[in-house]
Amino acid sequence: MECLSVKGDQLFIGGADVEALAKKYGTPLYIMDENTIRKNIKEYKDSLNKYYKGESLVLYAGKAFCCKQMYKILTDEGIGADLMAGGETYTAQASGFDMSKVYIHGNNKTEQEISMLLDIGVGAIVADNIYELKNIQQIAEQKGIIAQVLLRVKPGVEAHTHEFIQTGQIDSKFGVAIENGEAILAAEYASKCPNINLKGLHCHIGSQIFDYPPFELAARKCLEFASLIKSKFGITIKELNLGGGIGIKYTQADDPIDISKFIQGICAAVESNCARLDLPLPKILMEPGRSIVATSGITVYTIGCVKQIEGVRKYVSVDGGMSDNPRYIMYQSMYEAVRVRKPIDDDTETVRVVGKFCESGDILLPDIKMPELQVGDLIAIEATGAYNYSMSSNYNRVPRPPVVMVRDGKDYIAINRESYEDLVKNDA
Amino acid sequence: MECLSVKGDQLFIGGADVEALAKKYGTPLYIMDENTIRKNIKEYKDSLNKYYKGESLVLYAGKAFCCKQMYKILTDEGIGADLMAGGETYTAQASGFDMSKVYIHGNNKTEQEISMLLDIGVGAIVADNIYELKNIQQIAEQKGIIAQVLLRVKPGVEAHTHEFIQTGQIDSKFGVAIENGEAILAAEYASKCPNINLKGLHCHIGSQIFDYPPFELAARKCLEFASLIKSKFGITIKELNLGGGIGIKYTQADDPIDISKFIQGICAAVESNCARLDLPLPKILMEPGRSIVATSGITVYTIGCVKQIEGVRKYVSVDGGMSDNPRYIMYQSMYEAVRVRKPIDDDTETVRVVGKFCESGDILLPDIKMPELQVGDLIAIEATGAYNYSMSSNYNRVPRPPVVMVRDGKDYIAINRESYEDLVKNDA
Repeated sequence: MECLSVKGDQLFIGGADVEALAKKYGTPLYIMDENTIRKNIKEYKDSLNKYYKGESLVLYAGKAFCCKQMYKILTDEGIGADLMAGGETYTAQASGFDMSKVYIHGNNKTEQEISMLLDIGVGAIVADNIYELKNIQQIAEQKGIIAQVLLRVKPGVEAHTHEFIQTGQIDSKFGVAIENGEAILAAEYASKCPNINLKGLHCHIGSQIFDYPPFELAARKCLEFASLIKSKFGITIKELNLGGGIGIKYTQADDPIDISKFIQGICAAVESNCARLDLPLPKILMEPGRSIVATSGITVYTIGCVKQIEGVRKYVSVDGGMSDNPRYIMYQSMYEAVRVRKPIDDDTETVRVVGKFCESGDILLPDIKMPELQVGDLIAIEATGAYNYSMSSNYNRVPRPPVVMVRDGKDYIAINRESYEDLVKNDA
Repeated sequence: MECLSVKGDQLFIGGADVEALAKKYGTPLYIMDENTIRKNIKEYKDSLNKYYKGESLVLYAGKAFCCKQMYKILTDEGIGADLMAGGETYTAQASGFDMSKVYIHGNNKTEQEISMLLDIGVGAIVADNIYELKNIQQIAEQKGIIAQVLLRVKPGVEAHTHEFIQTGQIDSKFGVAIENGEAILAAEYASKCPNINLKGLHCHIGSQIFDYPPFELAARKCLEFASLIKSKFGITIKELNLGGGIGIKYTQADDPIDISKFIQGICAAVESNCARLDLPLPKILMEPGRSIVATSGITVYTIGCVKQIEGVRKYVSVDGGMSDNPRYIMYQSMYEAVRVRKPIDDDTETVRVVGKFCESGDILLPDIKMPELQVGDLIAIEATGAYNYSMSSNYNRVPRPPVVMVRDGKDYIAINRESYEDLVKNDA
């Protein structure tokens, strides 16, 4: 990971000594490098500015990692956010975020949520289906306002890691499919809603994608659909939201695409298709989440137990586990890890790193080559900045670790460690 | 589920009208029937009293569902608890629970936790390995006290659902194996620790088990091991903790064992093996968690969106999902569900019930036959009393639902609904 470095025997993140931070804040500990987050945001922003003739806006996907400090960084970088109604939106508001740069997703927004979103004046509600359009129209009409709306379409492209398919995404809870006519019905419905301004289309084709063609194909399919609704209903799409899903390097086996080259391809695809279809250039929206925060973060654990079972394997138990990182138990996700002291020592053994929870599936690293690990050693699991804190639980009533950010070697708390009092606070 | 009944068009749990509770507390909503919890506890207690000549104690496994009210019920029923150090222990203490009836598990207890447990005076620490015995000895010596300790052994029996194997459990992070000599080394170590009273053995052979023989075999193997350490080190085991793992009926496909018959078999196995090995009858400890609470609970959701995709499937989106029940995304766990109004109508369609989270794996019921479901309908997923609230997260910063208990038709709050303020409380 780029933000990690070694000086002498010690591991540093963003210029800060990892062992010193572990001592200061305790373990388990999430640490995130603010400069990496900013660098990743800038790469998206700068590439869009460089390669696209039209307008663009990067929307950070809040589900990857959400707290007030994160929105302050987004504000500073001048980008927007893709959020869910409810707690994510509440957090952004509480941080003083410009809510006109917020786009709201979700396959099931309640009427109260839609009402709240219209009152807040978010940038747009991404409508999932006709039923939701109907709710938005009714509520906007009651309020006497025009709701800014994007329609979530399934472009018929679905990508997973190194492969993609051109049908099948139709079997998804999200959005309306172009291929079976649902999307055109929804667009027609929207065109007849006096309190809805259908200003754009949204699609999202998958997660942790390592290939360019599916994104370009999705852009083409969306623009062909935009052309269709222009000719049918006279609606000109002003915004094209191409979602997120760009893969990141969790392990050496992952070969992520280059963000700048990726954006260049997207921009070229949008421009050429708009020219071909005689459409004005839409504002491009992109929704990266994982590729902004994942490689900014590590999780530091203390080893509490080492168990060599002869002829079987070596178990290394740490003081966290499935509650602070449920991605192995959910998806069998792989990570790299490093010993915090003398990190560049040769890997001399293969171990299984497990957590402390009462569950045999509580595994962090099923089989990883490491230098010798002893009780009391610190280890850092890399690329835990996305979907670790955000998916964390209190299983076994274990308090969630704090999130410490570093910038140019200086550390500060983004999220405080949960206390035992926090855990029983809502117990009657 | 036994605690559910239908009167007229309405579904009742423990005598309380589910729709009325949903209206009073909102959805999603966990509801638990206190009488079912008490009945399940009594079945364990009464069976042990009936079939066993020696002493016994039921220890509820707190990881299945933990809050202060739960410990008040345990206190009332006179049973103990099997807990993790940290938040689970803190919660029990905060409820005024008798900590001498608490047994502490975990494969990785910190020195601070061991010190705290000895200060509290818990019933016993279940030592996972020699390294932990060493820590316990040192800390108990510093305090000038005798630590009450059980040793967690791997009996060489591992059970999963309808099958079990007699080796292989050796590849586990928990405990020390009998078969490879680790356990006898650990017992020898304990026998030499002046500040440790090795009063018992503990084993746990799996989860959601539907068969009697593996438990009886595990009891036999533990007692043979007890006989060995008696002859070698003169230590007489006074407590035999046979763990939990009894399967429950999530769906019609599950055929759970009868608790009373199960206990009868266990007691017979312990008595016959003790006679054969010339051992005094140990106090039997059992650690049921799931089989105490799972079938006491339902989760009630409101349907917010119904999406019929022709030729593909019908998606029904509810206002909760993977954050309040992560068991499908973790284990592809199956559940039954019922429509709250007119629950006995014929099942006329097969639907996929999904949550509202930004994740395609956010599924609650992948393919379930139900009566027709419409927007606004309430549905109740059954048998969610275990490992739902306890494993819940705040993914998408969604607040956790409240837990409402009912007793003889009267409802009260066990855990309050999380607020948006709770979610940002620790944000700096």
